[in-house]
Amino acid sequence: MASADSKAQKRQKFEHVYTVIRDELLAHHASVGMPKEATQWFKENLDYNTPGGKLNRGLSVVDSVEILKGRALTDDEYLKAAILGWCVELLQAFFLVSDDIMDSSVTRRGQPCWFRNEKVGLIAVNDSFILEGAIYYLLKKHFRQESYYVDLLELFHDTTYQTEFGQLLDLITAPEDDIDLNRFSLEKHRLIVVYKTAFYSFYLPVALAMRVCGIPSIPGPKDPYELASSILIPLGTYFQIQDDFLDFSAPPEVLGKIGTDIIDNKCSWCINVALAHASPEQRAVLDANYGRKNKESEAKVKEVFEQVGIREKFAVYEEKAYKEIVGLIETIPEGGSKEGLKREVFKSFLDKIYKRQK
Amino acid sequence: MASADSKAQKRQKFEHVYTVIRDELLAHHASVGMPKEATQWFKENLDYNTPGGKLNRGLSVVDSVEILKGRALTDDEYLKAAILGWCVELLQAFFLVSDDIMDSSVTRRGQPCWFRNEKVGLIAVNDSFILEGAIYYLLKKHFRQESYYVDLLELFHDTTYQTEFGQLLDLITAPEDDIDLNRFSLEKHRLIVVYKTAFYSFYLPVALAMRVCGIPSIPGPKDPYELASSILIPLGTYFQIQDDFLDFSAPPEVLGKIGTDIIDNKCSWCINVALAHASPEQRAVLDANYGRKNKESEAKVKEVFEQVGIREKFAVYEEKAYKEIVGLIETIPEGGSKEGLKREVFKSFLDKIYKRQK
Ligand SMILES: [Mg+2]
Ligand SMILES: [Mg+2]
Ligand SMILES: [Mg+2]
Ligand SMILES: [Mg+2]
Ligand SMILES: [Mg+2]
Ligand SMILES: [Mg+2]
Repeated sequence: MASADSKAQKRQKFEHVYTVIRDELLAHHASVGMPKEATQWFKENLDYNTPGGKLNRGLSVVDSVEILKGRALTDDEYLKAAILGWCVELLQAFFLVSDDIMDSSVTRRGQPCWFRNEKVGLIAVNDSFILEGAIYYLLKKHFRQESYYVDLLELFHDTTYQTEFGQLLDLITAPEDDIDLNRFSLEKHRLIVVYKTAFYSFYLPVALAMRVCGIPSIPGPKDPYELASSILIPLGTYFQIQDDFLDFSAPPEVLGKIGTDIIDNKCSWCINVALAHASPEQRAVLDANYGRKNKESEAKVKEVFEQVGIREKFAVYEEKAYKEIVGLIETIPEGGSKEGLKREVFKSFLDKIYKRQK
Repeated sequence: MASADSKAQKRQKFEHVYTVIRDELLAHHASVGMPKEATQWFKENLDYNTPGGKLNRGLSVVDSVEILKGRALTDDEYLKAAILGWCVELLQAFFLVSDDIMDSSVTRRGQPCWFRNEKVGLIAVNDSFILEGAIYYLLKKHFRQESYYVDLLELFHDTTYQTEFGQLLDLITAPEDDIDLNRFSLEKHRLIVVYKTAFYSFYLPVALAMRVCGIPSIPGPKDPYELASSILIPLGTYFQIQDDFLDFSAPPEVLGKIGTDIIDNKCSWCINVALAHASPEQRAVLDANYGRKNKESEAKVKEVFEQVGIREKFAVYEEKAYKEIVGLIETIPEGGSKEGLKREVFKSFLDKIYKRQK
């Protein structure tokens, strides 16, 4: 396992590339004649919304390229991998800025949501578009000459569209102000998680790394991208189910935030498991209290979660998911596939996630 | 000039292709496992927001391909041109749905703005994303095999980003609830118009048509795309200035709507001309009344417009713009350039616009 020191160094090196792409984006904006106050606005939009998260998605592009190449990267290779990592972070920023508007959220990453800033408001909608648009500017600038340029474009298009499908499903299944648990199910939950989170958070970073490393698509059942997806989608699902469970179970001082999924009427794994196992009496408690904006209702829902044995059910799920994913990873030959895929890419993800407490 | 009949037929033929792409988008959405209610929502989003406008942008892709090829199109050529036309209309739908949210607008194309529908609300933000995302699904499905596929992608990326820059500039220059005419100027107006409207409404449709017809980019001063842009950006600017002038001057029964630019604090050509020519007294009237939500203030602003001679100034502008654009068009050799560009593409635009009354 990487020491805390080398992890911090990795992050710092990656963060330095943010300043590079940020300055490129702003220089281009100014160079087409935009007035200073507009470029200043763009700068604040970028700085407020792009760095400052955990950067897991962006860093995993770099990590995956390093594993696939099996050696330290040259400066140019590092820069290219890190730029793609920041493109994933820009995509994430686009989703988060707009999600917070749609969810009427208050804070994000320990600061007010961008649209909550007095001067911003709904201009944040267009600001989110610009964060997305910046991705294609950067891809064109840095990858246009590469044979895999169009593959990068399609990866971003496809996963963006998938995420938007997932967001739609989430929005119409669990609107905050119209509670109806009949719309929920474990299958609906799975679909939302796969589309809203897993494609862009797990598949996209690895697939980008695979493209940079020249791993080819092979139409048919041996496609390395299909293989990667068949591991990363279950991995992403497992990650989100942990996220849902920790929102309920983790002590706030460990989690670093107070879980609000119950109060926010989220279509979370926990409520769907509870619904699947609730007696008619328990179901009535859930119907009457889920998604309500008060601590008493939340406590009643939590009681039903405990009654149906959610903790044990999660432990059982986690073991099963872990074994399944290990099994999937082992379908890759031990020394790597002949196209260049390696078990280690997926193992390193799984190791970071397995039995995490926050 | 095309007869009203053949114009209606053209429109009908083009509208038929909408049902084709709509059904493709929905079939794909359902095929990846999305539940019926989500696909139904997508259908309503598409039907409510994509057709129903004037379709000028979409139709001009088809018209331009016909002119450039100089003959009737085969069924396949027509379909391809029309699909690109609908991609431009989807881009427009993406911009309009989100612009109405940002502007708190009430109606669009004679019906409530999409987000004003009770069940929709801010889900409209994500719905606008999906309209944009649909473009890249269609391009991949229909153009992936074409040598110019990546050029189409870049055209959409570049003009989308430009439009978002224009929207940002508009939003921070003329926020509806914070009136400050010091932020306005004819130069700011020009920038907003070029970025927010001209690139996607004028350059994009023609450049798409040029790609379909195999006209190559030539880096340097002879680039046909630069040439097209050098004509279409002034043409789009002229169009928007007409739009601004008609908002003030056209009788509502001719225009088909009541102009609201003054009340909405728009950074319109009219106010910028008035600001450039106002006496200190007139300026005080403009400062006190522009962007105010009442008919009396609007009437006072209109009076200043008349006092500075806006009608004559527009007539002078229109003659000058027309001559300038004709001059630009004539830089293309009479029989067409050797790359395949033709005067007629631009002339047909100009003829439709020159001295229009609505
Ligand atoms: Mg949210
Ligand atoms: Mg949300
Ligand atoms: Mg969570
Ligand atoms: Mg508007
Ligand atoms: Mg607007
Ligand atoms: Mg107008």
